Amino acid sequence: MSTTDTPEPTPQKRGRVNRRGFLTGAGIAGAGLAVGGAAGAGITYTATADTRSDPATETVEFYGEHQAGITTRQQNSLVFAAFDLKPTTVAQVETMMARWAAAASLLAQGKPVGPVESRPMAPPADTGEAFDLGPNRLTITVGFGPSFFDDRLGLAAKMPEALRPLGQLAVDTTIDPSISGGDICVQACSEDPQVAFHAVRNLARIGRSVITLRWLQEGFGRASATSTDQVTPRNLLGFKDGTANIKAEEPAVAEKFVWVGEETDQPWMKGGSYLVSRKIRMHIEAWDSDDISDQERIFGRTKDSGAPLSGGGEFTDPNFTVKGTDGRTKIDRFSHVRLAHPDSNGGAQLLRRGYNFTDGIDVRTGTLSAGLFFIAYQKNAHEQFARIQNNLAQDALNEYISPVSSSLFAIPPGLTGIGDWYGKKMFGYQG
Amino acid sequence: MSTTDTPEPTPQKRGRVNRRGFLTGAGIAGAGLAVGGAAGAGITYTATADTRSDPATETVEFYGEHQAGITTRQQNSLVFAAFDLKPTTVAQVETMMARWAAAASLLAQGKPVGPVESRPMAPPADTGEAFDLGPNRLTITVGFGPSFFDDRLGLAAKMPEALRPLGQLAVDTTIDPSISGGDICVQACSEDPQVAFHAVRNLARIGRSVITLRWLQEGFGRASATSTDQVTPRNLLGFKDGTANIKAEEPAVAEKFVWVGEETDQPWMKGGSYLVSRKIRMHIEAWDSDDISDQERIFGRTKDSGAPLSGGGEFTDPNFTVKGTDGRTKIDRFSHVRLAHPDSNGGAQLLRRGYNFTDGIDVRTGTLSAGLFFIAYQKNAHEQFARIQNNLAQDALNEYISPVSSSLFAIPPGLTGIGDWYGKKMFGYQG
Repeated sequence: MSTTDTPEPTPQKRGRVNRRGFLTGAGIAGAGLAVGGAAGAGITYTATADTRSDPATETVEFYGEHQAGITTRQQNSLVFAAFDLKPTTVAQVETMMARWAAAASLLAQGKPVGPVESRPMAPPADTGEAFDLGPNRLTITVGFGPSFFDDRLGLAAKMPEALRPLGQLAVDTTIDPSISGGDICVQACSEDPQVAFHAVRNLARIGRSVITLRWLQEGFGRASATSTDQVTPRNLLGFKDGTANIKAEEPAVAEKFVWVGEETDQPWMKGGSYLVSRKIRMHIEAWDSDDISDQERIFGRTKDSGAPLSGGGEFTDPNFTVKGTDGRTKIDRFSHVRLAHPDSNGGAQLLRRGYNFTDGIDVRTGTLSAGLFFIAYQKNAHEQFARIQNNLAQDALNEYISPVSSSLFAIPPGLTGIGDWYGKKMFGYQG
Repeated sequence: MSTTDTPEPTPQKRGRVNRRGFLTGAGIAGAGLAVGGAAGAGITYTATADTRSDPATETVEFYGEHQAGITTRQQNSLVFAAFDLKPTTVAQVETMMARWAAAASLLAQGKPVGPVESRPMAPPADTGEAFDLGPNRLTITVGFGPSFFDDRLGLAAKMPEALRPLGQLAVDTTIDPSISGGDICVQACSEDPQVAFHAVRNLARIGRSVITLRWLQEGFGRASATSTDQVTPRNLLGFKDGTANIKAEEPAVAEKFVWVGEETDQPWMKGGSYLVSRKIRMHIEAWDSDDISDQERIFGRTKDSGAPLSGGGEFTDPNFTVKGTDGRTKIDRFSHVRLAHPDSNGGAQLLRRGYNFTDGIDVRTGTLSAGLFFIAYQKNAHEQFARIQNNLAQDALNEYISPVSSSLFAIPPGLTGIGDWYGKKMFGYQG
């Protein structure tokens, strides 16, 4: 096996690298679909000084302790792909991961993965559709699913205990296995959808002898890259989504909730994280026929301002005990804000990175197919996502949403530099 | 029937309206998928002085002689919907069109289609997901398909002769009727995909007793709204797409090729246009395995710079007679650039407004489903699009593309102001 056609990464020009995005928009959330109200929240988003600069030219640091695309300020567009292994060998997978690492470092700089016209009688190394678009804050985040560690590659001993499948959660009656799971995942986020698509396409192409595409999801609309206002984005139910995300500029917060630490049984995962993705179909026609008062009862917040029904403004902490004149709590017991709140989940929190989606029309029902592609990062998905999700089994919102895919991936730590690749230590090499 | 709950449009604040977008990015093209090389082209794009202003706050004039979204400088995101009539009456359709006109004028200003919380025991008038996003250069363009004029509504006598169905063109062996055609279409374009989605969703909601969604298509990536460089965008085959689009700041060019004039048999269509949409699946895995020299032969241009193979730079007119040392023309006879060129089509040109798309995975083949959602506007689709498309039956590119949907819609002229609605004259009212 040869790796001579691996794209050659050029040395990082660190002066060009933009690290401003670190944790200015993403946040540690009180989990769930839309709201959290984390204790200690109430910290508003603040603008970075230069968010009006042209996002096309901005880059996100590729190398580092953690992979980019997790605590990175959320970009506008997502392309998420899950792949399955073809019959292959560990050596072939390693080679692909090494080539991916080299290619991803180039893509993150807005460069093609190789020259276009060097050999007339060969296909171009890069597919070309992003040639002129700039890096657009592209991040590429790679992970391994539980099935990667089955007996095909002989790596079962390397599987982290925390990667055991989540199994069927309480609300998981509508999961489609064909758009769930996978041996390997790639999350590409960018301010430009074509840049994110280009990244996934070219990684898929590099790996075409090793992997096959299992499913792919596009997402949009979680932030406005060129706007300086710090308005909380909205999901497709029209409610603000992310109010309770706290700014996590203190690395200690991410250390506590996001990054795998010494507790892991697999040292190669230290500095990594666990990704849960959930494709949540929203029954928007039914929702759109629901009274505004009922919509607000379900969320526990007002639709317009996002303020909790217990009073105050959007960033006021919800008060679950204050009662109205009817003697009932102003925030319903089964409201989303209450059930997703850390106080209802033993303090469990996670880092959310969701994107809205539309799939066109649901041919079964003739209605608009749309919803939220929920992504969460955490130290341990069993103790964080699954715990919260099981609490949400009573969520009044469940009448209007159905999860249709559910996946868990182990995200290895960041790459240290040229010569490192995704899972290198897992494959048995020294870092 | 009451129209009292029609959203009330506020008077246009013309001082706020941004008309800069008029025809600065869209262009009259030599047709076809990607290239044209229109005779007399070679005019490069020029930047408007202020393209770096925040697109979130920019509006496009809603009222006028023609509907917006045709010669408007192309926005980054598309949501295109086709609807079928439920069993209904002409009066109900008229009412819906009047409500759409009022709603669209509000949406174009970045406003909701109605208040959120005015009546607690009623659904909110607006679904809310675009509340804080700004107008983002939203345009809404409404049209009627041939089937609108069948015997259901009794409007057969109002059908323009030019709206007769295109029928099966030479390459149309893979068309899926379920994602083609429709009684009514809505094209929503915006710099923000959530704003475009919100517009279509709320129009669908206003019309829910009259129409049902037939199909919906998202598109992305034809321009970078925040970039001042005038780089021609690329399709997902990696080639520049739009090189030969000429700047049509001269209204005479649009009068000649785009706007319906005195020649129409239906006076209500004067000032309107005909829209052809074609969803073109690209077999990108096969394409990505093709040699660069073959890719360039097929397009007749270089991939990197977009220059015609006859020499020069991107904006040099292609020369179809100049020969290489092997005695053959440098631009292949069956190349896309030659067959789509006006010189090969009796001078026929049309206005293109295509968007790239990805649909995830093609479950039949396990490959990435992606391509171009081609939209063209013209005075007469039989004499323009169909003529050119039939000439493209010999296109070498056909090995790598398959049209999967094909639609034709009559786009009525623009609305004159409050009190006008889509097709008002067609319904028998005086303008």
